[in-house]
Amino acid sequence: MKNSFPLPSRASCANALRMLAVDAVQQANSGHPGMPMGMADIAEALWRHQLRHDPADPNWLDRDRFVLSNGHGSMLLYALLHLSGYDLPIAELKRFRQLHSRTPGHPEVGVTPGVETTTGPLGQGIANAVGMALAEKLLAEEFNRPGHAVIAHRTYAFLGDGCLMEGISHEACSLAGTWKLNKLVAFYDDNGISIDGDVKGWFGDDTPGRFEAYGWTVLREVDGHDFAELDRAIAAAHASDKPVLVCCRTTIGKGSPNRAGTAKVHGEALGAAEIELTRAALGWTAAPFEVPTDVQLAWSARERGAALSGAWRERFAAYAQAYPELAAELLRRCDRNAPLSAATQAALARACEAAEARAAAVATRKASQDVLQEVAPATPELLGGSADLTGSNLTDWKGHRPLKGTATGNHVHYGVREFGMAAIMNGVALHGGYRPFGGTFLAFSDYARNGVRMAALMQLPVVHVYTHDSIGLGEDGPTHQPVEHASSLRLIPGLDVWRPADATETAVAWREALRRPDGPSALLLSRQALPHAGDGRPRLDDIARGAYVLRRPEGERVALLASGSEVGVALAAAALLAAAGIPARVVSMPCMDVFERQHADWRDSVIPRHLPRLAVEAGSTGLWWKYVGESGDVIGIDRFGESAPAGELFKLFGITAEAVAERAHALLS
Amino acid sequence: MKNSFPLPSRASCANALRMLAVDAVQQANSGHPGMPMGMADIAEALWRHQLRHDPADPNWLDRDRFVLSNGHGSMLLYALLHLSGYDLPIAELKRFRQLHSRTPGHPEVGVTPGVETTTGPLGQGIANAVGMALAEKLLAEEFNRPGHAVIAHRTYAFLGDGCLMEGISHEACSLAGTWKLNKLVAFYDDNGISIDGDVKGWFGDDTPGRFEAYGWTVLREVDGHDFAELDRAIAAAHASDKPVLVCCRTTIGKGSPNRAGTAKVHGEALGAAEIELTRAALGWTAAPFEVPTDVQLAWSARERGAALSGAWRERFAAYAQAYPELAAELLRRCDRNAPLSAATQAALARACEAAEARAAAVATRKASQDVLQEVAPATPELLGGSADLTGSNLTDWKGHRPLKGTATGNHVHYGVREFGMAAIMNGVALHGGYRPFGGTFLAFSDYARNGVRMAALMQLPVVHVYTHDSIGLGEDGPTHQPVEHASSLRLIPGLDVWRPADATETAVAWREALRRPDGPSALLLSRQALPHAGDGRPRLDDIARGAYVLRRPEGERVALLASGSEVGVALAAAALLAAAGIPARVVSMPCMDVFERQHADWRDSVIPRHLPRLAVEAGSTGLWWKYVGESGDVIGIDRFGESAPAGELFKLFGITAEAVAERAHALLS
Repeated sequence: MKNSFPLPSRASCANALRMLAVDAVQQANSGHPGMPMGMADIAEALWRHQLRHDPADPNWLDRDRFVLSNGHGSMLLYALLHLSGYDLPIAELKRFRQLHSRTPGHPEVGVTPGVETTTGPLGQGIANAVGMALAEKLLAEEFNRPGHAVIAHRTYAFLGDGCLMEGISHEACSLAGTWKLNKLVAFYDDNGISIDGDVKGWFGDDTPGRFEAYGWTVLREVDGHDFAELDRAIAAAHASDKPVLVCCRTTIGKGSPNRAGTAKVHGEALGAAEIELTRAALGWTAAPFEVPTDVQLAWSARERGAALSGAWRERFAAYAQAYPELAAELLRRCDRNAPLSAATQAALARACEAAEARAAAVATRKASQDVLQEVAPATPELLGGSADLTGSNLTDWKGHRPLKGTATGNHVHYGVREFGMAAIMNGVALHGGYRPFGGTFLAFSDYARNGVRMAALMQLPVVHVYTHDSIGLGEDGPTHQPVEHASSLRLIPGLDVWRPADATETAVAWREALRRPDGPSALLLSRQALPHAGDGRPRLDDIARGAYVLRRPEGERVALLASGSEVGVALAAAALLAAAGIPARVVSMPCMDVFERQHADWRDSVIPRHLPRLAVEAGSTGLWWKYVGESGDVIGIDRFGESAPAGELFKLFGITAEAVAERAHALLS
Repeated sequence: MKNSFPLPSRASCANALRMLAVDAVQQANSGHPGMPMGMADIAEALWRHQLRHDPADPNWLDRDRFVLSNGHGSMLLYALLHLSGYDLPIAELKRFRQLHSRTPGHPEVGVTPGVETTTGPLGQGIANAVGMALAEKLLAEEFNRPGHAVIAHRTYAFLGDGCLMEGISHEACSLAGTWKLNKLVAFYDDNGISIDGDVKGWFGDDTPGRFEAYGWTVLREVDGHDFAELDRAIAAAHASDKPVLVCCRTTIGKGSPNRAGTAKVHGEALGAAEIELTRAALGWTAAPFEVPTDVQLAWSARERGAALSGAWRERFAAYAQAYPELAAELLRRCDRNAPLSAATQAALARACEAAEARAAAVATRKASQDVLQEVAPATPELLGGSADLTGSNLTDWKGHRPLKGTATGNHVHYGVREFGMAAIMNGVALHGGYRPFGGTFLAFSDYARNGVRMAALMQLPVVHVYTHDSIGLGEDGPTHQPVEHASSLRLIPGLDVWRPADATETAVAWREALRRPDGPSALLLSRQALPHAGDGRPRLDDIARGAYVLRRPEGERVALLASGSEVGVALAAAALLAAAGIPARVVSMPCMDVFERQHADWRDSVIPRHLPRLAVEAGSTGLWWKYVGESGDVIGIDRFGESAPAGELFKLFGITAEAVAERAHALLS
């Protein structure tokens, strides 16, 4: 069968990508034809001739990774996946951008087989790719053995002017250069056009010079429409000992006689008339959504993919015979749904129990480090890190191996790059093999916010360690004091935000974050010491339910709800109230998100609708009204902080036991 | 008096800065001595010999601007201001980092005379400086006349490794190069140390190469402790026709025998013993917080400053005589507290009235452009822009002048740089002369979030035009659909978030945003057309109160609360309910923030506590419970969106008149 057709030209193969993109965007009357038409030739050179993948096994562990950082060109990727033989039939391309299709507006991992990461927010894809290349390097270092290179793949990315203008491209690509990630190859779609028009008016960078300054190999002025040049460039890229930027001069919308090279072709359908002209110009005679059989056959990667993955499976079998434990561990590590190892589970249990038994007053950032000290040595998949605040975030532990420069390790020095860190962690998690966590000050979660959101959207099990919570940060002042951040992170769907009250809650938060296979967690940790909140009754599983009753006195007349550092304040206020003859329930709510997922019975048992309720949290009040009701009250901070020692600030903002007790009295009167 | 002392050495002058920083950090037992000690010599070269400023008139219109982008070195700036003769007595330096001092942990504009911008969140200071230099260039172009250079000042910035690692430095400095802002001079404190230690492990950039790629003049390998070299570098910088990066090799903590050159000196007090050693090493014999009189006199800039500003006032007087209208307009434009011009006020009134009279169904992004079309030609201080989404955000207007490359204009093409745009707008607003606004998609407010926060903290009157609100965005899918963003922006203290329901509310939102002298506003605008919400009764002033009753039928039994695109849904639901014999109040709440500032009487008159209440908003539900109470209900979206046509999505998420009416029925049963 396959030999019954003459081999089509490479141009025909590329034109199939162009026309599928044109047809799908036209059918949806929505989408971006310009990039797929401009990058089709590069895609042909990479996907048909270089990419090592197996459409029948999209999760093949040692496949090359491909990231479409300019995700608005999604139809290019869908066309590639369809033609290569992934489970993405033409019917799905016809439903481009329609509800519950496998071809959403931007590529979404988990929705479409073969899509490695969700892209669209510009610049993050290339940062994900850096994370994937980092994970590959670390995993190869950890698992390969002489004669057994079971991890040996490359990471490719497509990116455009938009990605390169975004600041995150600076953060991620600087690190890729410092790390010498030589198996990362990025193709820059240098078409000179962004949405507002000719980029010269707002993008005057010498991009090759910039990337050389990062320590990349730059292949300049490659003709992105010349297959032979592209082949040579890719061969050169593979030979580099640094990450590679292939600068491809292209024409956006290439093939469209009237729109090629214009901003108009970027983001709207060509329209029937221009499509006809485009078909004529390309010599494309097949009907819309149809691809000539010879082109289809030429594109299919199923046979080549089966051979590649089959050969790898043979290599892996030999490896498994020589190193059975390593092989099993590698498979466990790369299985997102595998439970934590028994050693990790036991370490987490020890950490929780030790914190509860110790009953010490400790900063929760220190309590977090205590957990890591117990858990990290038992958990080789942990890949910690900090955005240049290691000694403040306390993300390291005794015996950690710092990842600096080209060294491998298990604690990454990301430098002052919060957004880059978040998106690189996403890339690591997407790649598999590691469970990344990273630290910065909570206030600077702002810098990384869309990366955190993307982790939630992609359901990635990354952990953000955000220390120096609230005005408790003290002297650094309002720029560094998070006020709205706890609540604003809670609003991100699917992100579990933990604000633990003491060391025990911190340990449980870590336990729950690591147990969670399908979503990110943020741990909001104090700079200052917090008192132990427990009273000896078992509470580990209660904590894990997001909110629980910490004190339930006889004849309770009021309830105090709090999280984090204010739980101690609420307990002290309850003592004052008790002395005044007013028994007060105290509810600790370390994680609103988890609490909201509990059964109504649990929620009703924790939040006493029959009692007057007062919430206290050193931050935005808005989200607490749901739990205290209109007849309740909230003590919080709806303004910016001040620079002063923390103790003075808590007094200034009225977050003291006395102030809480007084407000509770007022609620009752 | 001033001649009775011999001139002290420049080293002594620099050491005064070092020791004031050391003493203040020691007294506070908090702060960062390393940077002030390392940059003291550079500061001496710039401030004592070049900076054109007048300590007696910190708001002198044509002063040079100085930005401490590495804001943790705040004590350097406080020492400079104190010694130069600003109203910052030594008593304030002794209260460094104490409550309500004029010397907070990081520099805060408005708190300390002479501080031009609030810094600390790294990278934003240099972006502010780019904005200031842009404003200077535009203002000079607009107001200077031959022989009358009344605007002719420079912008200087100090920055460190941290600023240069942050992505925003890429965004802002790329634009500065494209714009050829030759009056911007940045001094890079190249000390090789960041908090985690020697930066080589995580910051391998060839920074000079990188900045040359941006089109900057780079002065390489300047010895940051050699005054003659520094003088030559500054002279060379002043001669450049591009922005200039002066790369200064320095020793962090210079002067401290045991800590210089280490990360330890970055962020903690030296301690008594090391201070003694430092004093000995520097030959400094004055008591703590004391500065020898000769050094004090050598530092004072009051005489030089009075001469500089006096000469300028003479030049300005001549200008005012030659161009009285221009001079008056320049003064008005640079007075933050000046009211809007009569022409602008009238244009805003026309825009509001026209929208109300037209009563058209229109996308609020288009309604926003209609306002601009009316207001911008009458308001020369408006400086619009977009992060490469001009045609989508509709931030331009007929007759606007695009600012591209080195052209001047009144609509800035920022490129795909949301964070850079926000921080540059802050710099423009801080500089004065312009009222900046800029657009991007609401979802990508995430990228700029800390810049928006900084505008709020600094009380800057910038306007963020965030279009493509909610799932109404449609096919682009969950990466581009804001769900949590409206609420999460509302949580930023001092930011007014408007989500208008129709063209009239959009016009009023613009009116209120422009009338606001002391804080930022965000306008959340729809991609899709929204029906007119008014019923003919006057409501312009009601809208301006943040929430108001849109329909108040006789015998009302339930209240529907909504914002933005859901107001139309609520009105349609009310019609369904009316048909079923249930009169329903409809409340439109375009701005929760403004509503919260209203008197309780207004709030109580709008939110009927006696009625069952149902809120509907196509986004996070959390903040609405405050207004509906526990017995009420909220229809919203607490998950990510989907890629599909908008109409289908509103059905999928249950945001339809039918669904709202049904839920209202349920509330009543």
